[in-house]
Amino acid sequence: MKIIEPRILSGFMELLPEDQILFNEMLDTIRKTYESFGFLPLDTPVIELSDVLLAKAGGETEKQIYRFTKGDNDLSLRFDLTVPLARFVAMHKDELSFPFKRYQIGKVYRGERAQRGRFREFYQCDIDVIGRGNLDTLEDAEIPAVIYSLFKKLDIGDFYIRCNNRKILNGFINSLNINVDASEILRIIDKWDKIGEESVTAILNEMGIEESRVKEIISFIKTDGSNQEKIDKLKKLNITDELFNEGLNEMSEVISYISDYKITEENFVFDLTITRGLDYYTGTVYETFLKNDMSLGSICSGGRYENLASYYTDELLPGIGISIGLTRLFYQLKESNLIKSNTSSISKVFVIPMDKENYKYSVSVSNEIRSNDINTELCNTLGSFKSKMKYANRGKIPYVIIIGEDEEKSGLVTLKNMETGEQNTISVRDAIEVLKNEDNRK
Amino acid sequence: MKIIEPRILSGFMELLPEDQILFNEMLDTIRKTYESFGFLPLDTPVIELSDVLLAKAGGETEKQIYRFTKGDNDLSLRFDLTVPLARFVAMHKDELSFPFKRYQIGKVYRGERAQRGRFREFYQCDIDVIGRGNLDTLEDAEIPAVIYSLFKKLDIGDFYIRCNNRKILNGFINSLNINVDASEILRIIDKWDKIGEESVTAILNEMGIEESRVKEIISFIKTDGSNQEKIDKLKKLNITDELFNEGLNEMSEVISYISDYKITEENFVFDLTITRGLDYYTGTVYETFLKNDMSLGSICSGGRYENLASYYTDELLPGIGISIGLTRLFYQLKESNLIKSNTSSISKVFVIPMDKENYKYSVSVSNEIRSNDINTELCNTLGSFKSKMKYANRGKIPYVIIIGEDEEKSGLVTLKNMETGEQNTISVRDAIEVLKNEDNRK
Repeated sequence: MKIIEPRILSGFMELLPEDQILFNEMLDTIRKTYESFGFLPLDTPVIELSDVLLAKAGGETEKQIYRFTKGDNDLSLRFDLTVPLARFVAMHKDELSFPFKRYQIGKVYRGERAQRGRFREFYQCDIDVIGRGNLDTLEDAEIPAVIYSLFKKLDIGDFYIRCNNRKILNGFINSLNINVDASEILRIIDKWDKIGEESVTAILNEMGIEESRVKEIISFIKTDGSNQEKIDKLKKLNITDELFNEGLNEMSEVISYISDYKITEENFVFDLTITRGLDYYTGTVYETFLKNDMSLGSICSGGRYENLASYYTDELLPGIGISIGLTRLFYQLKESNLIKSNTSSISKVFVIPMDKENYKYSVSVSNEIRSNDINTELCNTLGSFKSKMKYANRGKIPYVIIIGEDEEKSGLVTLKNMETGEQNTISVRDAIEVLKNEDNRK
Repeated sequence: MKIIEPRILSGFMELLPEDQILFNEMLDTIRKTYESFGFLPLDTPVIELSDVLLAKAGGETEKQIYRFTKGDNDLSLRFDLTVPLARFVAMHKDELSFPFKRYQIGKVYRGERAQRGRFREFYQCDIDVIGRGNLDTLEDAEIPAVIYSLFKKLDIGDFYIRCNNRKILNGFINSLNINVDASEILRIIDKWDKIGEESVTAILNEMGIEESRVKEIISFIKTDGSNQEKIDKLKKLNITDELFNEGLNEMSEVISYISDYKITEENFVFDLTITRGLDYYTGTVYETFLKNDMSLGSICSGGRYENLASYYTDELLPGIGISIGLTRLFYQLKESNLIKSNTSSISKVFVIPMDKENYKYSVSVSNEIRSNDINTELCNTLGSFKSKMKYANRGKIPYVIIIGEDEEKSGLVTLKNMETGEQNTISVRDAIEVLKNEDNRK
C-alpha cells in the first residue's frame, strides 16, 4: 500500500497529551470563571454564510478568510466570535433576556502567512454583555473583576489590567480644536508603549499639529498619580467638552467600584495611553499584561462598543466584552516557561495486576476507586512489570496500585507513591482516602 | 445602512442558552467519564491537508467533504475523528506511550443533503485504545464498562449494550463453505433489527445460498439463552474453524469480565445479529440502545479494528474504540422529551441591589458568595424590581438575593428560593450554606 506522509498544515497547533492536559486546564479555568459571574454558554457554527459573516469585513480581514463554495452555498469559516455573536443576537433578540451575558470558547480561522507564534486556527475565549437599547456603566466595572478573578486562578504570574475610556481622550482632543481626526491621534497614542514618548511626539508633530498642542497632548496622557489622583487632576483641567466629562464620570465610577471587588492598584491601573486601535470601541477599554513578560503584549483585551449588530438589525445593541487568544497565549507561556506542569496527568492512579489471574480482582478494585470520583486507569496489557511502571512514569500518574497473589488473598492492595517511592499494603478504603486527599488535579 | 438578514446554513445546530447548558452538561459527563478511565485528551485541527485526510476516503464519503483551496494548499474539513487519530498516531508514535488511550470530543463536517435530524456539523465524542503491534483482549472488556458508566451518568433512560464478535460470524460462515462473501452476508444480518427474520431469509435465498445453509445461518444467529448459555451452545456446535474459535474465546473472555464490572445482562447482551456494517471492524463490535426508544437506533457504537493507520505507516497499530454522535443524539432526546431540564441554569443566585446606593454592598456580597465556588450573577442594570425578578425567572436561576437599605444597615441579605417562594433575611454566611447545600448543578 502506498504510504502518505502524515502531516498537518503549518500554523495549526496540535499538542501531545501532556501539553493538551495543561491547555485543557486553562480552558476549564477560563470557562469556570466566566460561569462564576453568570455568563451563559454559546456555541455557533464554524461555517457561516459568506454574505452574513462578511457583511462588515473588508481589506485585510477578508483576505485571510477561508472561503469556499459547497453546492450553491458561498461559505466562510468564522474569523472571530464577535460577528457570530452579533448575528446570533440579531436573530434571537426576542428569545433572549437582556442584558444578554454570554461566553463563547471556540476555534476561529485566519489564513495568515504562517510565522512563529502566529496561528491560522486558534481558540478565542470571549465574554460579552449586550444591552437592548442601553447598558449601564455598572457593567464596565464588572469586566475587570472577571479578568482579575481569571488571572488569579490561572496562576501564570503577576499581572495588571490597564483601563481607559476613549471618551476622555476623544473629548480632550475635541476640546483642543485641532484639524486632525481624533481617531488618528488615538492610533498614535496607542503605540506609546512600543515606541515611547519621543517617537509619539515626533509623529504628532509630523501630522501637522501645532507644537504647543502636541505638548498639551503629551502632558495630558502623562497625567500621573494614583487612579483617583488622575481623575482629580483631569477634573481640575476644567475641560467643558461633554464627551470628555461623560468619559471621566464613567471612569470615575469604574474606579470607585473596583475597590469593592477587592482589586488594588497593583492589578488595576487607569492608564491614558491605552486606546485599543479599533474605532469599534467607544468607551471603556481594557488591556492585560503579565508583569514578568511585558513582551507578550496584552493577553486579554476588550472594551465597550456602541452597537453590536448594525449590519443585521436596526435595533441598538450596545455591548462590552473581552477576548483571550488562548492558543497564542499558551504557546507564549510555554516558550517563556511560565506554565506549571507538575499536575499533568489525567489518571490519579494506575492499577497493575501482576498476573492475568489477578485481573478480575483488579477490575473490582478499579471500579471501587473510580466510583469515588477518582480517575483510575486499569492496566489491560500483559507484559513486564517494568514496562508497566514505565508507562505510569511517562504518564506522570502520581500513584500506582500493584495487585498480586498476596494482595488478592488478603483483600488488600499495594499503593505506591510514584514521587516519594513510598509503598504500603493497605485496604482499598484506605487507598481511596490517600488518593482523595492528594490534591493532584484541581 | 443595508441590513443583511441574519441566518445560518441549514443542517447546523445552534442552541439558545437554556439548551446549550443541557448540551454542555452532557458533553461534560462524557468527558469526565472518559477521563475517569484514564483516556487522554486530543485536539486535532478541523482543517487537514486533503491528500492526507482523504488517503482512504472515496465514493460517498468524498462527495460529502468540505474541500477547498487556500493559497497553494488543497484543504478539507475533517469528517470524523478516526482519520485524524490515525494521522496523529502515525506522526507521533515514538513520542506516545502504548497502549495509547485517547478521547477526542469535537466537531466534524459532512456536507450531506440537509434533512430533519441530520447535521452537517456535529459533535463526535470518541475513545480509542491503540496498541503498537498488538492489543490485549482485556481492552475489549473495558470498553462496555465505559459505555455502561457513561449512560448510567447521562441518566437518559434504561439502555443496553449489544455486543458481538465478527470473528464468530465470519468463522461460522467460512465453515459453511458457501460461495458468497462473508462480509456480504454480515451486511444482511446487520439489518435483522430493521427488516426482521423473514426478509433476511428471503435476501439470503436470493443471494443464491442453498436453502439448508440459509436455515443454518438463521438458526445460528437466533441462538438464545443467557450470555453464558449462548457461548455454551456455540461451543457445542463443534465448529473447527480457527477464526470462529478465536472469536468465541474472545467473546467468552469479555463476558467473564463484564460481571466484575458489575454489569448484568439487563445492560449487556451477547447478540449475534450485531455486525456493524463496516468491514473496518474485525473483532468485538458494540452497539447501544435506549430501551424506551429503540427507534433512535444505536446511540454509541464501535469495535475492534486490525490496523488504524495503514495509509500513514507500515507499523501495525491495532485498536478498539467507540463513538457517540452527540449533536444528533441531543436532537433526538429533545424530540422524544428524554432530557431532564430542571437544572438548566449557570448561576445559582442572582443578586439584586434595590437601588444604586446598595450596589457597593452588593458587590462585596456577590464577591464573598462567588469565592465559595458558587456561580453568582450580580444585577448590573438599573430598572424596575419586577423586571429584575423576571430576568431571574427566565434564566431559571434558583435563588435571588435582594439587598436594600435595611439589609445593608444590618449587614444581612434577603434570600429568596425562586421555586418555593420562601424568603428569609439572614447573614451572608448562612446564605452561602443554603446555596452550597442546594445541589442545583452537578
